Amino acid sequence: MPTGLLQHIHSPLELRQLKLAELHQLAQELREFIIDIVATKEGHLGASLGVVELTIALHYVFDTPNDKLIWDVGHQAYGHKILTGRKDIFHTNRQKGGISGFPNRSESPYDDFGTGHSSTSISAILGMALASALKGEKERQHIAVIGDASIASGMAFEGLNHAGVTTANVLIILNDNAIGIDPSVGALKKYLTNVKKGTARQENIFEALNFNYSGPIDGHDLPGLIQELERLKTIQGPKFLHIITTKGKGLKKAEENQVVYHAPGKFDKLTGDLLPKSSRVEPPKYQDVFGLSLVELAKENRRIVGITPAMPTGSSLKFMMEQIPERAFDVGIAEQHAVTMAAGMAAEGLVPFCNIYSTFLQRAYDQIIHDVALQNLAVVFCLDRAGLVGQDGATHHGLYDIAYLRCIPNLVIFAPMNEVELRNIMYTAQLGLQHPIAIRYPRGRGVTIDWKQKFKAIPIGIAQELKKGTEIAVLSIGHIGNMVTQLLEARKDASKIGHYNMRFIKPLDAKMLTSILETYTHIITIEDGCKAGGFGSAVLEFSNEIGIRKPIKIFGIEDLFIEHGTVEELQSLTEIDMLSLNNYINSILNTD
Amino acid sequence: MPTGLLQHIHSPLELRQLKLAELHQLAQELREFIIDIVATKEGHLGASLGVVELTIALHYVFDTPNDKLIWDVGHQAYGHKILTGRKDIFHTNRQKGGISGFPNRSESPYDDFGTGHSSTSISAILGMALASALKGEKERQHIAVIGDASIASGMAFEGLNHAGVTTANVLIILNDNAIGIDPSVGALKKYLTNVKKGTARQENIFEALNFNYSGPIDGHDLPGLIQELERLKTIQGPKFLHIITTKGKGLKKAEENQVVYHAPGKFDKLTGDLLPKSSRVEPPKYQDVFGLSLVELAKENRRIVGITPAMPTGSSLKFMMEQIPERAFDVGIAEQHAVTMAAGMAAEGLVPFCNIYSTFLQRAYDQIIHDVALQNLAVVFCLDRAGLVGQDGATHHGLYDIAYLRCIPNLVIFAPMNEVELRNIMYTAQLGLQHPIAIRYPRGRGVTIDWKQKFKAIPIGIAQELKKGTEIAVLSIGHIGNMVTQLLEARKDASKIGHYNMRFIKPLDAKMLTSILETYTHIITIEDGCKAGGFGSAVLEFSNEIGIRKPIKIFGIEDLFIEHGTVEELQSLTEIDMLSLNNYINSILNTD
Repeated sequence: MPTGLLQHIHSPLELRQLKLAELHQLAQELREFIIDIVATKEGHLGASLGVVELTIALHYVFDTPNDKLIWDVGHQAYGHKILTGRKDIFHTNRQKGGISGFPNRSESPYDDFGTGHSSTSISAILGMALASALKGEKERQHIAVIGDASIASGMAFEGLNHAGVTTANVLIILNDNAIGIDPSVGALKKYLTNVKKGTARQENIFEALNFNYSGPIDGHDLPGLIQELERLKTIQGPKFLHIITTKGKGLKKAEENQVVYHAPGKFDKLTGDLLPKSSRVEPPKYQDVFGLSLVELAKENRRIVGITPAMPTGSSLKFMMEQIPERAFDVGIAEQHAVTMAAGMAAEGLVPFCNIYSTFLQRAYDQIIHDVALQNLAVVFCLDRAGLVGQDGATHHGLYDIAYLRCIPNLVIFAPMNEVELRNIMYTAQLGLQHPIAIRYPRGRGVTIDWKQKFKAIPIGIAQELKKGTEIAVLSIGHIGNMVTQLLEARKDASKIGHYNMRFIKPLDAKMLTSILETYTHIITIEDGCKAGGFGSAVLEFSNEIGIRKPIKIFGIEDLFIEHGTVEELQSLTEIDMLSLNNYINSILNTD
Repeated sequence: MPTGLLQHIHSPLELRQLKLAELHQLAQELREFIIDIVATKEGHLGASLGVVELTIALHYVFDTPNDKLIWDVGHQAYGHKILTGRKDIFHTNRQKGGISGFPNRSESPYDDFGTGHSSTSISAILGMALASALKGEKERQHIAVIGDASIASGMAFEGLNHAGVTTANVLIILNDNAIGIDPSVGALKKYLTNVKKGTARQENIFEALNFNYSGPIDGHDLPGLIQELERLKTIQGPKFLHIITTKGKGLKKAEENQVVYHAPGKFDKLTGDLLPKSSRVEPPKYQDVFGLSLVELAKENRRIVGITPAMPTGSSLKFMMEQIPERAFDVGIAEQHAVTMAAGMAAEGLVPFCNIYSTFLQRAYDQIIHDVALQNLAVVFCLDRAGLVGQDGATHHGLYDIAYLRCIPNLVIFAPMNEVELRNIMYTAQLGLQHPIAIRYPRGRGVTIDWKQKFKAIPIGIAQELKKGTEIAVLSIGHIGNMVTQLLEARKDASKIGHYNMRFIKPLDAKMLTSILETYTHIITIEDGCKAGGFGSAVLEFSNEIGIRKPIKIFGIEDLFIEHGTVEELQSLTEIDMLSLNNYINSILNTD
């Protein structure tokens, strides 16, 4: 439990009672409290440590929650949560039933807008400020805090471009620490560096966009911050404050290795040392299978390029960036650009592997349809974090990709059941595929210790019969098929149950599917994705089209947003777990 | 047929044989040729007239198609098409089987990248330039031409931000005419105006992003343009040329009224006068029903705001912008920002009507999921141009919205069958709806002369039985239901056929649907959208879920991209027409 000043802060009201001179101590305590909890409970560390002073200053100067405050992305909002009434439940962060790792409107009146994906804050705060103006709330302040990686994303520019021609009472605070999850890239970052060094020429970009600009100032200087925020509070119209902070501030190791300490897992709260991971031999993470296999393939095929929008570490494209830097591109938080640039490269005969998390590919939906699929350009989309992702929760689950991709002509959609299939479909994709392909695979580890096997092509549109049966056919797509295998190995009546690894959501294996539909009396489909329009729905459409109408039980995510928890907890909650599947099979076979 | 110099130009090869002094005459001829054809065949006029000199200069100076040239959006590419071998078929522009109104890779080797949606050109040309560099093609030039409205979109900024830190050999030409389809908006536009006036301070935004900037220069001064392009050709790395042009240049009326002459329909090629439209009383355009009804509603409900991303005219939000300007927002080509700003407004209790064409809403897919639906904010999305749109073709059909929206929790999806239903659902949506809603309606005119009827609420999730039957039930969604009505009126055996206007794609009317599935022997669904994951698929899912398995025939668009043609031609092609429906009914009732 917190001691000192922090123990008395239950809301910003108590914070505002403190003397200016006491705030430095509070910052120390807040920092220690965050470190204490995250060291054992895990979570996003570095970003929140970097804005401890800013968080205190904002709630000290502004009249939250009457004044509106949005944290872009939200990785940095731990201090905010602790100071706004969630100190005592902060240890439940990211756990099922606990508080969310991101700002969340349903969690607190101080969370004015839910975040999770980047670069939304300027648009949202401008909407609120325009609403306040229309409602005649002239005194209300509207603040968005956005990092230098997020502000370089196109959506943020759109917000700035609009805000600059309004008289809306908005304050955009650029929290410039030169890093997102990985180090920031791009011309704007370079420009901001020049601003900091004083080598940029007089007018700056934000002034050119009609903002009242101030800064750069030291974001760890509490009195300086407070003074500047007080001044800005009195100015009407769009304002821009540029502050310089250090990600991980106050924990030496976190300052020194900002990428690792973005979300370090468990660590020693005094030394910052990471706690040793289990030393037992485990199957690899899917992301590493992607990253390492891509290097293997790219060494042989010079037409291969790798693209990531700001996720070199999370996607493991970092391996290619280290070994073949001239063909591996981190384009920053710019999913739209990443996809269309990949299309341009494919048009010129390259084989672009464009790696984007499933949930972030939503940002480039039009580009997939309009720039890639319509022109039938053979871009290889690798969709990491497809399906339930666990603690990051509703903003990060990759549940919609099957549904939103399945309606796009020309696109092949594949989900590997294991690491070897991921490798082999990557190998297949660079052999001269005539269509774009989307490969979806989950967060976390696979199932195969000995994953680095010789490459082998997978025929497009061909499914795999894992096991024949007599009554029930289970059609699985992707990694979740391993759960089916495990269940069938445990059932005594497994001979009645066939299991098919369908591999391709599109094109479906019409021949095998027809045979399955003709042979079995009951069909079960299972997928780690939404039911509406998903894989099961595709099987239904096919079955209806060929005029076979048997009971098809679809296991998938119902039409609800799913919060945070472990993947296992969430699979159980959404009934795409072994127990639910087992119960259903029992209900058919009357063996329970 | 063209005479003079133009008649001898079959490709840029002949163009490059001309003397510099002859190019002025060629420009005159090219302009006249465009006006001649578009005057009778219709199409996008103003943009192409504005870049006649630029088009000639580019093909004169650069070695197309070896050098790469991308026209952003593509409205301005008529001159390009005429000079690159399509002069003799230019009169087939936008017609079924004829050339596309936009650049199209499958049409010509001079069309390096298909466009149609805005702001893709910088990303695509950068991808090509990086590919050239990797392939060792050091001399190849890469040019993108982008307008001042398009460059203000976030995706363009992402491209610039990346290009500026590469050594890629790209030339971005900003065609600055201060207008997109409607006049450009935003801080960047204001800034560009200051650059033109000379009041902007020394360093400009594009230099700040690390481009070698030149301009602004007169884009109608052919010798000046050619000289500058020749100079830029010798400079390596990212270059930016700012040219000033007049949209509609050379046709007085088009210069004077740039919005109308963007795509004026038929006009007198000498005077520019628009040809009189039919004077018979016709039903209104859906867009006008939206625009006028919104004004009616907003006068009564002060919480209503209107938002358009750069389509005041096309969406008819212009009516509200004229009458209630303080609550109607044109945010520029910024769909992402438009949606999240709407979410911010809804969070503060306003009722935002966010009007975006179906095909352009693809640009804001993540924002719908993450910023609106996840937070269950009651934004009202009005999706104009849903379904087949006709001559604009594959880049503009709104065929995927049902599939890509149907998987999103919390979202209500409605399609009005006629003008009165559109008005009434708009009325319903502002009464205090607890969810976001998407209302999809087609391009063009409705069916009701007397459309301005008293508002009446529509209960959410309740379908409409238009006509009972005994054997077949036809379930239609949206405007295409009128075709069903018309067919049934013509059939003698109509008593056998029921017709249901389902209204809500989501939530489905479970009660009525259950009753239909129980009552009829055959079910037909029909929609103006893709079959995969669409409305018919939703009916299948429901039917399977409740365990009723009857034949369900789904009429919708197959898994193919659909080119241009009239809506009627395309409906026939895609078999969502009266003949196909009639034939199918005959096949069931054995009455053919």
